[in-house]
Amino acid sequence: MVYNLPLRWKPCSPHPPSYPTSPSATSSTPVIPGAVEKMTTVSKESDVDVLIIGAGPAGLMCANALAMAGVNVRIVDQRPAKVPAGQADGIQPRTIEVFQSYGLGERLLREGNQMHMAAFYNPSPSGGIERTSRAPDVNAPSARYPFEVTLHQGAIESIFLDSMKAHGVVVERPIVPTSLELSESEEELKDANARPVKVVLKYLDPPADAGDSEIVHAKFVLGADGAHSWVRKTLGITLDGEQTDYIWGVVDMVPDTDFPDIRAKSAVHSHNGSCMVIPREGDLVRLYIQLADRDVVDPVTGRVDKSRMGPERLIEVAKKSFAPYRIDNAEGHFDWWTLYIIGQRVAAQFSVHERVFIAGDACHTHSPKAGQGMNASMNDTHNLAWKLTHVLRGWADISLLKTYELERRKYAQDLINFDKQFSKLFSGKPRTEESQDGVTHEEFLEAFQTFGLFTSGIGVHYEPSPITADHYQAAASKLIVGERLVPHDFIRAADARPYNIQDLLPSDARFKVLIFVGNTPDKAQAARVQMLADEMVRPDRFLVRFGKGHSAKVFDVWSISSAKKQDVNYIDLPPLFRPHWSHVLLDDTDMYACAGGGGYDAYGIDKQEGAIVIVRPDGYVGMVAPFERVKDVDAYFASFMTRA
Amino acid sequence: MVYNLPLRWKPCSPHPPSYPTSPSATSSTPVIPGAVEKMTTVSKESDVDVLIIGAGPAGLMCANALAMAGVNVRIVDQRPAKVPAGQADGIQPRTIEVFQSYGLGERLLREGNQMHMAAFYNPSPSGGIERTSRAPDVNAPSARYPFEVTLHQGAIESIFLDSMKAHGVVVERPIVPTSLELSESEEELKDANARPVKVVLKYLDPPADAGDSEIVHAKFVLGADGAHSWVRKTLGITLDGEQTDYIWGVVDMVPDTDFPDIRAKSAVHSHNGSCMVIPREGDLVRLYIQLADRDVVDPVTGRVDKSRMGPERLIEVAKKSFAPYRIDNAEGHFDWWTLYIIGQRVAAQFSVHERVFIAGDACHTHSPKAGQGMNASMNDTHNLAWKLTHVLRGWADISLLKTYELERRKYAQDLINFDKQFSKLFSGKPRTEESQDGVTHEEFLEAFQTFGLFTSGIGVHYEPSPITADHYQAAASKLIVGERLVPHDFIRAADARPYNIQDLLPSDARFKVLIFVGNTPDKAQAARVQMLADEMVRPDRFLVRFGKGHSAKVFDVWSISSAKKQDVNYIDLPPLFRPHWSHVLLDDTDMYACAGGGGYDAYGIDKQEGAIVIVRPDGYVGMVAPFERVKDVDAYFASFMTRA
Repeated sequence: MVYNLPLRWKPCSPHPPSYPTSPSATSSTPVIPGAVEKMTTVSKESDVDVLIIGAGPAGLMCANALAMAGVNVRIVDQRPAKVPAGQADGIQPRTIEVFQSYGLGERLLREGNQMHMAAFYNPSPSGGIERTSRAPDVNAPSARYPFEVTLHQGAIESIFLDSMKAHGVVVERPIVPTSLELSESEEELKDANARPVKVVLKYLDPPADAGDSEIVHAKFVLGADGAHSWVRKTLGITLDGEQTDYIWGVVDMVPDTDFPDIRAKSAVHSHNGSCMVIPREGDLVRLYIQLADRDVVDPVTGRVDKSRMGPERLIEVAKKSFAPYRIDNAEGHFDWWTLYIIGQRVAAQFSVHERVFIAGDACHTHSPKAGQGMNASMNDTHNLAWKLTHVLRGWADISLLKTYELERRKYAQDLINFDKQFSKLFSGKPRTEESQDGVTHEEFLEAFQTFGLFTSGIGVHYEPSPITADHYQAAASKLIVGERLVPHDFIRAADARPYNIQDLLPSDARFKVLIFVGNTPDKAQAARVQMLADEMVRPDRFLVRFGKGHSAKVFDVWSISSAKKQDVNYIDLPPLFRPHWSHVLLDDTDMYACAGGGGYDAYGIDKQEGAIVIVRPDGYVGMVAPFERVKDVDAYFASFMTRA
Repeated sequence: MVYNLPLRWKPCSPHPPSYPTSPSATSSTPVIPGAVEKMTTVSKESDVDVLIIGAGPAGLMCANALAMAGVNVRIVDQRPAKVPAGQADGIQPRTIEVFQSYGLGERLLREGNQMHMAAFYNPSPSGGIERTSRAPDVNAPSARYPFEVTLHQGAIESIFLDSMKAHGVVVERPIVPTSLELSESEEELKDANARPVKVVLKYLDPPADAGDSEIVHAKFVLGADGAHSWVRKTLGITLDGEQTDYIWGVVDMVPDTDFPDIRAKSAVHSHNGSCMVIPREGDLVRLYIQLADRDVVDPVTGRVDKSRMGPERLIEVAKKSFAPYRIDNAEGHFDWWTLYIIGQRVAAQFSVHERVFIAGDACHTHSPKAGQGMNASMNDTHNLAWKLTHVLRGWADISLLKTYELERRKYAQDLINFDKQFSKLFSGKPRTEESQDGVTHEEFLEAFQTFGLFTSGIGVHYEPSPITADHYQAAASKLIVGERLVPHDFIRAADARPYNIQDLLPSDARFKVLIFVGNTPDKAQAARVQMLADEMVRPDRFLVRFGKGHSAKVFDVWSISSAKKQDVNYIDLPPLFRPHWSHVLLDDTDMYACAGGGGYDAYGIDKQEGAIVIVRPDGYVGMVAPFERVKDVDAYFASFMTRA
């Protein structure tokens, strides 16, 4: 993602940085040149459960998830309003699934452009470029939405803002933090109800009759404040990694062109440099344009100088790549533009004492062209939000929060490794007559497809931990523990209505307990199912033990039969496995043979015997087990949940 | 539909009817006993293009369509607020398509229940009932939405009300018309810009400082004021048909039951009467319960007496049919209930001089159990709205409006004929040991399936007329002229995104000109396509002749190639056939082979040669023709459109 670009490039800029700074609780706070100290008047002091600093995609995903869960949360941002245009714009298939899990997928799909097709252009022997092939943009067979959505960041932020507002949470702005102190008392740090974090907020546009700052005592703080994160710097967390030599320009405009693949994700490798086309909402198109040092580097200082390059000049560079096709700006204005050098870095830690967290660009920076940045950011906090909710509700031990860094830092490292390979391929010279050591189209296409599972977000795999227990993986051999629940259509027994199972398991902070009840019309199996129900209803089993007297708030129980719609009555299942008539599903086709069927096979579950599948509140498979191992399912929950 | 029930049954009721009446322009106005005349003070006099009387489903469909088209429209209703519960609740597959064509399908599907499955219960030899089979609820293979949506009428009205409001139109209420006069001047009647209708409106809750009535001069008036239509009576239009002997009760409630098919459309024929189950939004269920004369008829007067029957007694009657299954009211209250006798009537005419129209229940009454009423009503005005729009914009001759009665009265007659057969079957005794002349399950099921095309609304077929010209039917042998455009998935050439073609052809008052351009990569065919474009761009051809200098407002042009996505560049088609990059479609699968392909076959169009298809603004096929017959397409439009 491309935030605050001039700052990154001009550390000696005469302008003050975006965030004013002040002496903080940690000694390693970097002092940014030009920071201005002012007298502040404290107008109030307040308590909050979660304070989020930064209302970009990472902060908003978290704020919305917590607002929907009814958690006491505040979110502040330094900007007086949300970004109007440009910035990040690509939503990957897995992220669409995540939006949908919060009930926000419909609007995202309505407003965004869908990118289904990739096109590859390479140097033509006769000069200029020619199309080598068209191919699917997404290479992840189980993706529920096999395409990317492109939409400008402001529109994406609005989706969250509107949803949060309906739950009573709005972004407070413009506000910056000026100090952050974390208690060193071990007792306080271990007590989920304590407020060990003290943050001073400064109102940049305070009401006339009040002071301009506020002391906030928070149980937890999230720094989602971008690549130049004040929270990260204040905590003294370092970014490991380095800057590359690849320099790119980005321009958003409505094109006037005869290039036939202007509405596809087109990778253009020419004799005269590389471009990437990203079609956007409406008629907008984003161009990524590779630049040479001579285009942007000041020969005297050796530094990148943004004043040497404007959007018109970027188009001039692009035109050379697109020839013989014509490309112009149709409207005389540019929606947005920027320049960047790819930096590939990961934060050394993602939290301090599981009380202050960082997420999004504050944790990882990389190239924007594979469209990962905003997705990684939002999935960071999608991972964190339910864990905070469980701890704050007293359902889970505070140690659950350690799994955030465990899961998301590993992912960020994988992302940087991928980015290094992809950037090298994309920014490298194409193979031509004259350049025999260049990258061949076959190499590029192969990488594009190999990386498909990763870039789509579908392949994200969390390692074994207290919340991902894979010892009985064979019970559902294709529902990989640590990966997201594979979407599949099932029908409801009561009314034969087909549903994608993902839509029945929303991100509502509940663990989903899926009882694949097998071949229920068979009497022996029906008896096994009844035995399982009798076992699971016992007070020492997890539903009661960790259900806190309101089991349905913590656990959402579903049953899925492998039998046919003519043979199953939902009413015949044990009441524990049908808390509502809608909670009995069948692995059968709908009345019109349009949807459903094949689910047990797709999940690798035995159609006679069934299995137990535990899905985490974020949609990832936490555990699978045969009926006989319900004791181990208890142990799974006991490893991080607290007793009634 | 079941409006104002006590009135229909008690013509000598001491209560005044819902609509006050007054001497009207026509001499045949029936004087309803009990009508009260009051002095009114005229507060203002105003002009309007279209005045709609009645804000039920028929009136609201019309008001919303006209509001979206920017037509000057007002809508008034006697009720102080929309209906809170009960009433009509079934939306048929074709009506869902129509909602979707106005951009309202998403919300309808989000809020409503989907009825996919029908279940049939019959007398068991051992007493009680048993399930004979489960079957698809909808029997219409081309239905895009193969299910019925059930949702209470108030929620359906809200969908229109919110959409209209966004276009600046709200229902004015409580207001009743007290007189209606239609000019007898032929000159005025023929002039689409004249306002030959004078209506006096009376405000039932007038502002304190103003008069309580208003004189409105309208170009057109629509009476969508229900089965007891004041407009119909005022115009002296008779209802032809008769009342049956079938008496039914209806009750909406949340059931507590062990009946396994309570979430299916269940037809229950028992030794002790018949019931029908209609599952609804949330956990609500509607029961239709057959009643015997003894249950409801006063033995002294011989009349139906509603006081003899309440919802609790209806449930007692139902219980006898459901045995051995148990059914109770889970919540102690009833959402809604009513009684009705099936009347089967059609109005003798649907308009007077194409200046005052009636629609919906004002035109036709029939049994509610096949779920047709609200659908017929909304499709009446869906048919009318675009015609009014074209005439008011000066695009079409006023004679176009004659096709409203032509098309919709024929449909209403078909509906009554269907209803007679269906009601007889459903209300008749089931075949049992004792009752050998009863209706067999096979007879019932066969009728249920045979009528499927009709009841789904998919089979509606408008006869040849100026707007349905079927002389070149062979050019697209499976796109039947007079029937709705068959939904099918195509992909866009520019970005391979799949679309159902219905979503690209919204109800926006434009005629859709679909050029099936055939096998465009073939040079000979490309030349034919170019010739067609050269021909169609001529000033004596319909696009220019009837385009009024803003052809794109009247006609929406699309091209659909039969070639493959690797071989077609949208940019290669003649500019006339690609007014925007999004308007070039392909009959090919998407990048993931999930959608698309087979469209030319499904439409019966030659893949090499192509065809021209004209789709009316309401989504019905108006004409199909080979390329060579573009002159006849001109003639089609010339038969009802006006020159620039």
